[in-house]
Amino acid sequence: MSRKSKEEIAAIYKQMQVYICEALEAGDGLGKFKADNWTREAGGGGQTRIFQDGALLEKGGVAFSAVHGPTPKKISDKLGLESGIFFATGVSIVLHPYNPMVPIIHMNIRYFEMEDGTHWFGGGIDLTPHYIVPEDATYFHQKLKETCDSFDPSYYPKFKEWADDYFFIRHREETRGIGGIFYDRLSATSDSHFQEILDFSLALGRLFPEVYTHLMHKNGQLPFGKEEKAWQNLRRGRYVEFNLVWDAGTKFGLDTNGRTESILMSMPPQAEWTYQHQPQPGSAAQFTLDHLKKGIDWLTYNHD
Amino acid sequence: MSRKSKEEIAAIYKQMQVYICEALEAGDGLGKFKADNWTREAGGGGQTRIFQDGALLEKGGVAFSAVHGPTPKKISDKLGLESGIFFATGVSIVLHPYNPMVPIIHMNIRYFEMEDGTHWFGGGIDLTPHYIVPEDATYFHQKLKETCDSFDPSYYPKFKEWADDYFFIRHREETRGIGGIFYDRLSATSDSHFQEILDFSLALGRLFPEVYTHLMHKNGQLPFGKEEKAWQNLRRGRYVEFNLVWDAGTKFGLDTNGRTESILMSMPPQAEWTYQHQPQPGSAAQFTLDHLKKGIDWLTYNHD
Repeated sequence: MSRKSKEEIAAIYKQMQVYICEALEAGDGLGKFKADNWTREAGGGGQTRIFQDGALLEKGGVAFSAVHGPTPKKISDKLGLESGIFFATGVSIVLHPYNPMVPIIHMNIRYFEMEDGTHWFGGGIDLTPHYIVPEDATYFHQKLKETCDSFDPSYYPKFKEWADDYFFIRHREETRGIGGIFYDRLSATSDSHFQEILDFSLALGRLFPEVYTHLMHKNGQLPFGKEEKAWQNLRRGRYVEFNLVWDAGTKFGLDTNGRTESILMSMPPQAEWTYQHQPQPGSAAQFTLDHLKKGIDWLTYNHD
Repeated sequence: MSRKSKEEIAAIYKQMQVYICEALEAGDGLGKFKADNWTREAGGGGQTRIFQDGALLEKGGVAFSAVHGPTPKKISDKLGLESGIFFATGVSIVLHPYNPMVPIIHMNIRYFEMEDGTHWFGGGIDLTPHYIVPEDATYFHQKLKETCDSFDPSYYPKFKEWADDYFFIRHREETRGIGGIFYDRLSATSDSHFQEILDFSLALGRLFPEVYTHLMHKNGQLPFGKEEKAWQNLRRGRYVEFNLVWDAGTKFGLDTNGRTESILMSMPPQAEWTYQHQPQPGSAAQFTLDHLKKGIDWLTYNHD
């Protein structure tokens, strides 16, 4: 078996974008993605698919890109690479639901290659509930673990810890949500290993709409009022803070003249800030804050 | 005349905070500042005064701080200093009005000193109208020029250009607003020069409520509807983007374990994001976008 070429991987990821969009449209039942093609002056381009004003999803995007060209100096410095021609392709998703009882979700799968053969895969899925529901957190992590385990039993524990560290809002000392998995710089040691890592990223892509459709349908009709909406908007503010201050991908994109509207499709439709907001002791909001911590094992969490 | 000590400068800046808060409360007519004292583990502290739910002002803060201690490595590296004991004091303000016809305003004056005598002043005022009104922009820049000119005729042109460069949202290729003045690392060459720079910063402090009260009262009762509110929230989103992605002071504070709630008092009460929003051709919103450019000379702007 020979390795897939970078063009083949880009084509497979483009198909994954279509697959995910169709599944999400079916899950929402009302909204439709709007496709927006763009090209990059220095080489390549992409298609950003934007979702606005659905039945359950308020705003989101599923972006595909495949870009190439001379490696910008900021990128080669950061990645510790020699200069040369790079190629990068991936699918990136953020979804913001209307209902505060449905979580925000993010997924990314990507492949990077240099002309000298250096290459790696990266990606991850993480969940940001406005209100943490332990049952849903356990379901989410179980699904991730199953998918990871079907490739390599070392993946889940390693990538779960990596997600806890990565999706961390340092200036708040809060995790962004209940984490998930995150991995980067996975390089293949053989052709079959290359195929395995590629297949792993595709398994995550297929898992994504399954998991999110489940959560949308389970919680999307739960009642909520002004208080829950205000709390959702505060949590969305934290999401903005993480993405603009700490998220390596966002910072990197904005710093290297990436396509701003595609990078910032992750922004929520609204966000709010209140000085020193303190939830009521014993409230669901306080429970959530208490669980925005690294190192919680949602698989063995006591649901009694 | 001998130089003011750092303790005296801190006391003068603290008084300036009180002066500005009183003037803004009088200007608003309804809201009151709420004071919040805090201390810094490694040395010093401050008082953050927060304003919420006034008649004209929706959210804002006037923060005083005077901190000292061993220079954190990130700071000495960034500033190109030897390690040692630092001292920093200043007043920092951001105000977000209800009415989209009233601009967002920001002011900062600050003093920094190392134990070896290295010292400098920094500061600035800049205006971020949701809708640019040339008459107000000219008024604002004229007032800044008058104040600058009464100290040094080279200040206004130099500091105006500096503000254009500093308050620039690179990933949007937009200035944050109509600029103003910005200066940093102004060091004294003599005791009288030291007093002059200090007095300059105090003149800016006194100018601030005069200018903003004028704009609040001139535009605070203008009618607006849903469309203007939505546009205001999009512009507030840009304000968030600038502060979290590009503002050196904010990044620096969050990166060096500053007091998060004081640093992020600059966040608006709400913000919104829409994918690829395009104002109607010929609209006031489009006029605004067309004037979010560096290098506009508002003093000689043609108002015909």
